[in-house]
Amino acid sequence: MPNMRTIEWQNGTVLTIDQTRLPHETVILKMKSCEEIAEAIKSMRIRGAPLLGAAAAYALALTAHYSKAKSREEIVKELEKAADLLRKTRPTAVNLFWAIERILTKAKGFSGNAKALAAAVVEEAKKIADEDAAANRLIGKYGAQLISKGDTVLTHCNAGALATVEYGTALGVIRAAWEQGKKVKVFATETRPKLQGARLTAYELVRDGIPVTLITDSMVGYVMQKRLVNKVVVGADRIVKDAVINKIGTFTVAVLAKEHGIPFYVAAPKSTFDLKITSADVIIEERDPKEVTNIGSIRIAAEGVNILNPAFDVTPLKYVTAIICESGILFKEDFDKFKA
Amino acid sequence: MPNMRTIEWQNGTVLTIDQTRLPHETVILKMKSCEEIAEAIKSMRIRGAPLLGAAAAYALALTAHYSKAKSREEIVKELEKAADLLRKTRPTAVNLFWAIERILTKAKGFSGNAKALAAAVVEEAKKIADEDAAANRLIGKYGAQLISKGDTVLTHCNAGALATVEYGTALGVIRAAWEQGKKVKVFATETRPKLQGARLTAYELVRDGIPVTLITDSMVGYVMQKRLVNKVVVGADRIVKDAVINKIGTFTVAVLAKEHGIPFYVAAPKSTFDLKITSADVIIEERDPKEVTNIGSIRIAAEGVNILNPAFDVTPLKYVTAIICESGILFKEDFDKFKA
Repeated sequence: MPNMRTIEWQNGTVLTIDQTRLPHETVILKMKSCEEIAEAIKSMRIRGAPLLGAAAAYALALTAHYSKAKSREEIVKELEKAADLLRKTRPTAVNLFWAIERILTKAKGFSGNAKALAAAVVEEAKKIADEDAAANRLIGKYGAQLISKGDTVLTHCNAGALATVEYGTALGVIRAAWEQGKKVKVFATETRPKLQGARLTAYELVRDGIPVTLITDSMVGYVMQKRLVNKVVVGADRIVKDAVINKIGTFTVAVLAKEHGIPFYVAAPKSTFDLKITSADVIIEERDPKEVTNIGSIRIAAEGVNILNPAFDVTPLKYVTAIICESGILFKEDFDKFKA
Repeated sequence: MPNMRTIEWQNGTVLTIDQTRLPHETVILKMKSCEEIAEAIKSMRIRGAPLLGAAAAYALALTAHYSKAKSREEIVKELEKAADLLRKTRPTAVNLFWAIERILTKAKGFSGNAKALAAAVVEEAKKIADEDAAANRLIGKYGAQLISKGDTVLTHCNAGALATVEYGTALGVIRAAWEQGKKVKVFATETRPKLQGARLTAYELVRDGIPVTLITDSMVGYVMQKRLVNKVVVGADRIVKDAVINKIGTFTVAVLAKEHGIPFYVAAPKSTFDLKITSADVIIEERDPKEVTNIGSIRIAAEGVNILNPAFDVTPLKYVTAIICESGILFKEDFDKFKA
């Protein structure tokens, strides 16, 4: 990973790493339009709930920055159109919608001229990115309190620097513990179908020198039964009143953790919280069957088979030991207070 | 699949389907030596616990059939050497060891001349294969009693015709229910790392016209939570006093089934039973890390990551609703009686 944030604004260009090309190639995407960012989100070149928030904000920043509109109202109209496009990219992670609303609210409430508004939108997007970076550090700081010397932590998918502006949520907790000298070890699930664990989490941790063992998703029961892991930390795409919505397979890990008495922690910034709704209201994105039938360009599955490919699943809060956010560690009673 | 058993003896040649080439190509292996069969078992061209029993028996049959030994004792010595080679192929499925012992016992107790002994060994191997075929039909017949009209059954890995001499254990149960008009549907897990579910189970069921939906291993929790499946049937590589040893990921499925109150059935012939030992005595085969880091020739995992690749896991009996074998359906109390 080059020495940069996962997403950056540089004089009207948004730079980010093409996550579909990792770990084999580090390709920097240079994007100058909302459309390009929307396409990158759809194709998962940009992925990870907190990063989707920053990316959507920067997409609107590009819209404002390159707008030829002469009036505040016209820019707002352009932003609303761009927002519509972004909202259609991926339905599940709430950070995307949260960032869009924040930018639109800012723009609608702004009272300067068109040029000043464009600058204000860019500033707000940068602020969203900066806040995410800061939130990740705080999540790391708080979360590390839950990690003891010598712990082996299992994580699913990638909730690392690559899923955020920098540092990471679940991997932020692991990084902070590591930086404190706690000699933590990690088990990473490969996370089919898109293999974010094998490709991204393994990549990030190897790069940091944190010992990481890759397993297939089918091995989680095995490593817990053998007591090879003693904690779980994952990220989240949306935290609602009754559940955590995260990458498909998270619920399976949570059930196994409960069965083995292993603490199951969720690390996510508050931009992931959506506490007015319940899991029944969340649209679980169903993705292209090819992600299951193929790996890359190779067809692995027999022809003629039906496919199910939900990108996320629902982990009811009873399986969650605590939620780690930038405000601290929320155990059940804290989270209930937080929701109220 | 051609119209043949998964393994057949034809005048001194053992025919079997190369399971690493399915579903894309149907390649028939024609083997004339124990060494060829041993290699095919190691490389998983031949796999599936009951099939490993038949294959080992036929491997010894080839040894006897082509032996130039003049005396009974010499052939027995050659068989013992061949048995040593076979025992080193794969350590977990007990059927392999069971079939070897059965052939050796037959040979050692035989009183005719060398030629007659060779013929007797071939006959015994054929008998083992025939018995497996018959056991599978009975497993199907008994198991189908547990399946109701309209059930959706989840299965893991491949415990089908391809894992046995013919018909299948877990898939035998599904086939028998289907043949009775019960309109069963199936969810097949892809079964990383070797993808037997995606490649073999999906292939067999599509071929039979039984509706099958393929999911990644990470989706088992999702489909159970959504009540998309209401029964689980899997095979076994070894059934010991306290547990069922089967393909990695089986234990994860079992825990999820228990959490959701979904019956979890194990279908296996008695040649899989090893009731003198407990799970602590079983060697869980650890296979090549490349099976996890790569899919086919494509590297998917980041470089530098550690790998764990156990081929099997241990499902304690408390997770097992019943074991279906050729003697009938063994619920807990029946199995306890059976063990005694």
